[in-house]
Amino acid sequence: MTEFKPLNRFSVEPLSRMTRRLADVAGGRTEPDLVITGAHVLSTYSERILPDREIWIAGGRIAAVKAAGSHTGGAPRYDAAGGLIAPGLVDPHLHIESSMITACAYAEAALINGTTTIFCDSHEIGNVLDSKGIEWMLEDAREAPLNIYLTVPSTVPATTPAIETAGGDLTPEKIAALFDAWPEALGLGEKMDFVAVAMGEPRAHAIIAAALERGRPVSGHIYGRDFVAAYAASGVTDTHEAIDADIADDLLEAGVWIFLRGGPPTTPWHSLPKAIGTVTEYGAAWKRVCACTDDRDADDLLNFGLDWVVREAVRMGIPKPAAWAMGSLHPATRYALDGEIGGLGGGRRADLVLLDDDLVPQSTWYGGELVVESRKPTPRLEAALARPYRYPGPAYATIHLPDPLPALVPPLPAGPCMVNAIRTSLPGIELVHERIALTPGADWASTLASHGLCHVAVVERHGLGGNVAHGLLSAFGLRAGAVASSVGHDSHNGIVAGLDEADMRIALQAIEAVGGGVSVVENGQVVALVPLPIAGLLSDKRVDAVAEEVRALKAAWEKAGCAIPYMGFNLIPLSVIPQIRITDKGLVLVPEMQQVPLFEAA
Amino acid sequence: MTEFKPLNRFSVEPLSRMTRRLADVAGGRTEPDLVITGAHVLSTYSERILPDREIWIAGGRIAAVKAAGSHTGGAPRYDAAGGLIAPGLVDPHLHIESSMITACAYAEAALINGTTTIFCDSHEIGNVLDSKGIEWMLEDAREAPLNIYLTVPSTVPATTPAIETAGGDLTPEKIAALFDAWPEALGLGEKMDFVAVAMGEPRAHAIIAAALERGRPVSGHIYGRDFVAAYAASGVTDTHEAIDADIADDLLEAGVWIFLRGGPPTTPWHSLPKAIGTVTEYGAAWKRVCACTDDRDADDLLNFGLDWVVREAVRMGIPKPAAWAMGSLHPATRYALDGEIGGLGGGRRADLVLLDDDLVPQSTWYGGELVVESRKPTPRLEAALARPYRYPGPAYATIHLPDPLPALVPPLPAGPCMVNAIRTSLPGIELVHERIALTPGADWASTLASHGLCHVAVVERHGLGGNVAHGLLSAFGLRAGAVASSVGHDSHNGIVAGLDEADMRIALQAIEAVGGGVSVVENGQVVALVPLPIAGLLSDKRVDAVAEEVRALKAAWEKAGCAIPYMGFNLIPLSVIPQIRITDKGLVLVPEMQQVPLFEAA
Repeated sequence: MTEFKPLNRFSVEPLSRMTRRLADVAGGRTEPDLVITGAHVLSTYSERILPDREIWIAGGRIAAVKAAGSHTGGAPRYDAAGGLIAPGLVDPHLHIESSMITACAYAEAALINGTTTIFCDSHEIGNVLDSKGIEWMLEDAREAPLNIYLTVPSTVPATTPAIETAGGDLTPEKIAALFDAWPEALGLGEKMDFVAVAMGEPRAHAIIAAALERGRPVSGHIYGRDFVAAYAASGVTDTHEAIDADIADDLLEAGVWIFLRGGPPTTPWHSLPKAIGTVTEYGAAWKRVCACTDDRDADDLLNFGLDWVVREAVRMGIPKPAAWAMGSLHPATRYALDGEIGGLGGGRRADLVLLDDDLVPQSTWYGGELVVESRKPTPRLEAALARPYRYPGPAYATIHLPDPLPALVPPLPAGPCMVNAIRTSLPGIELVHERIALTPGADWASTLASHGLCHVAVVERHGLGGNVAHGLLSAFGLRAGAVASSVGHDSHNGIVAGLDEADMRIALQAIEAVGGGVSVVENGQVVALVPLPIAGLLSDKRVDAVAEEVRALKAAWEKAGCAIPYMGFNLIPLSVIPQIRITDKGLVLVPEMQQVPLFEAA
Repeated sequence: MTEFKPLNRFSVEPLSRMTRRLADVAGGRTEPDLVITGAHVLSTYSERILPDREIWIAGGRIAAVKAAGSHTGGAPRYDAAGGLIAPGLVDPHLHIESSMITACAYAEAALINGTTTIFCDSHEIGNVLDSKGIEWMLEDAREAPLNIYLTVPSTVPATTPAIETAGGDLTPEKIAALFDAWPEALGLGEKMDFVAVAMGEPRAHAIIAAALERGRPVSGHIYGRDFVAAYAASGVTDTHEAIDADIADDLLEAGVWIFLRGGPPTTPWHSLPKAIGTVTEYGAAWKRVCACTDDRDADDLLNFGLDWVVREAVRMGIPKPAAWAMGSLHPATRYALDGEIGGLGGGRRADLVLLDDDLVPQSTWYGGELVVESRKPTPRLEAALARPYRYPGPAYATIHLPDPLPALVPPLPAGPCMVNAIRTSLPGIELVHERIALTPGADWASTLASHGLCHVAVVERHGLGGNVAHGLLSAFGLRAGAVASSVGHDSHNGIVAGLDEADMRIALQAIEAVGGGVSVVENGQVVALVPLPIAGLLSDKRVDAVAEEVRALKAAWEKAGCAIPYMGFNLIPLSVIPQIRITDKGLVLVPEMQQVPLFEAA
């Protein structure tokens, strides 16, 4: 029995310990471990295609890219058969938790997409488990067959304890401690409270200072051209939220790197086509423009990877080598890692992708090892994926609903009144504040039906008081039963919507029983369930299994009539996006941050 | 009497302590300290000219760049009168010692040239005074009104004790200690022993490892396309020595940043016009291309600054904003300082230049303070320059010639023999190995005259043994007297050439008397002398005074008939450049590194 050889970021030695060997290989004095022959090379440095090259690899790093036919020794060869070899992609901003899988599981999808490095902002697990959740995820990341760097979550909780109950509270001191303990913490994650930042709020700036004092850059999250100047003056130097060419242009000129976010075209994640206008319409240089994914459903990972985002940039008019550089060298440069990744220079990690003419990844080498061939994991990768990191017990015990479960629906009002309702609509990010005149019927069922409403409740689940708040959704479309989720951004309390309290209880209890997840209930039966036992956010299965579960969930979700997808549903408690949200402490108007009752006098 | 307010890199507080104030200013809640109105802006981010802007400055940093007319408050204003405001230039590679002035003195010339940040590699003072000389120069740099970062000298001595006697020996351990003690040590200086690096020599690689282990990049110095692959594989990620488009292209593709070196067009320093062909002829993207100066005579500083190099890039076809970016944002990005300098983004240092339409700097702001106006130092800068750093006593006591001075010329051979002569020719970098059949006359004077030769001697001056080596220069052109210098690269032993031993003694003693310098002697009289009392390398006067002395020296030098300029003369002992050099240990052939006698049997 051969011993298992780990495959992760540390499988390749630091360059500082390899320069002599690489010089010997490049100089022809020592044989490479592998020579990839018959390749054209996509140069992210010069933004050209270089014909007829071969790549000499040793110790998981690139010793040299040479003219075809240079190698005459006996080293193993891989024939690229005239294909295009490019550096692995580098995703400068994403949240692994959005895909509801672990870092080890995420690696599989990333590698198939030709992505070999990611910068993750694990603020979801931070909201549930504070620093220790982030650290478990970092342990996970260190064992994954992928280069995973952290941008330290900067805005946990998203608001304040007066507005909602969160499981995490990342103070400036805790953030500083994460930077000091984890060298892979290369930046501060998106500073989402951009209004607070722009207004000079002390805690927000103390958190920024913790990063800047350590020479770490600060990532941004901003809407609205009026805020750009003050936000950039606060030390923020990237953003992935530019929604059109005008704000992208403003940000670029304010010294902010632009991460063009691409995603399923029906969602607001796909801001690339408009934002890229700063280059394609306004003529800005693209050297400070990158591509990123931000969030992906598990089942979308393989269809809308960073490779797809890069191809969208090509579709919008960017030359292929430059577009690939936006997804590799430029993010590497933004994080001062261009000596390690992002191009095929000497000494760099041999994180490589074999592309077809349309820039679709066919095969991937990670640290010089072939991990994906013809879009399938190789046995080497399969072996690594079979031994993922296991989160510790406490990560599996995070759903602490009040016991007994309180009422999930409010008492029926005695007479006519006004309701502060939440109107859901596609694409599901912004929620409309709708004031509805309610005339109660005989019971809730008839009352909901006559007004086109549906119950919603948020139940505190961190074991921190057991608050429950009641609300009413308008136009949600649910025809019967209930849906529930333990992923309720950003504090991740339980959220449940339904027409019938009994079904709502069943939906919530189904989640509780598996340590977290998303459920659909119809007539007292759980018809779909994605278990997310780690922090109530993540599955511990491989990506294909989770994608399968998610597809089943989406089918049931749609069949139930829900007008917005479950990712939008999960955002209903996200109390930093307009106009009205519901947390465990009740309804809140955004951006006024004003709490309002569900019922008011008519 | 008002207290003197220092003006140096630390006069502006770190951004981490200023974000709230800058957000307040950018947001219009607090007045700026200064508003520069009536400006067009050169954007190094987008490579465009942005018309009609105003720049809001607070605490020495840029709070915001806004549309003209945005500011309505009472803050002081400066009317740019329709001129172009650009970020101060960033020189990624130079040696202050080449200009024979201190860092404080260098700052004056830099600021007049629109250069506000430099990366210096102080390997000359390191060769004389080891780590402590470098540290004194860092103290000097910290008091200079200029952002001065260090690339730690990597190749001191240039060769080995068998080849020459140096005052410094920077081991990997000493280099590591410099990195750890001086946060402004942002990279490793040019690794000049590129053959040793490419061949995997252990000490060279241990020095590279000391930088890489600390996350610091490594600068290069390389000739010859054959060495590129092994050199790049050794972790080197920039070079300023690309002499033509082909090697520049090779280096760029090997992942190496290209620093285009510009200098007086009659010298080999001006490699930009050919090397830029990687962009202008071969079509490479210019995002990893920078401009630099490397070395300048004191009197050339104002004529051939980095601004001039940038204009040369424009002359070669690069658009103006992109050329300026090569001299500002790109070097800043190469050193991961693009959040601090290199562009007019929010939060950056207010290091600004007002340019005319031809990109000639007219006025300069350093940390928000006007230091140059209409190409003249302002009173604020004059006050700072009047209080330069003073090097300690030991820095002034570095010329330790053997006492008594040994014979500076060899005994006249008794009969015909072969001479291993050094043939000097313009531009003076490479020296030709000329084997000459010598037929001795009655004395040296007639023998030199009949063969077109001239004496040269290198005298150890560090008090480390007092070696003297004799040589003969061919075609040096000296008509009478002697010339001498304590600047004899890289070990900086005394070098003296002459037709007459008595004049040679006088030339050397003239230097010794002032603690170092360069001298010209004619008929027993010192006719020109530039005193360089600090380490035998630097004057302690201001740049205009030294430039004046240098102009006088050059006139006397030319009058004496010397065929190569004194900077070339100073390179005669530089035992890493072909074909033949002379050190205190004798003649050496390069690159064979083979020592040869002056006289051989016929």
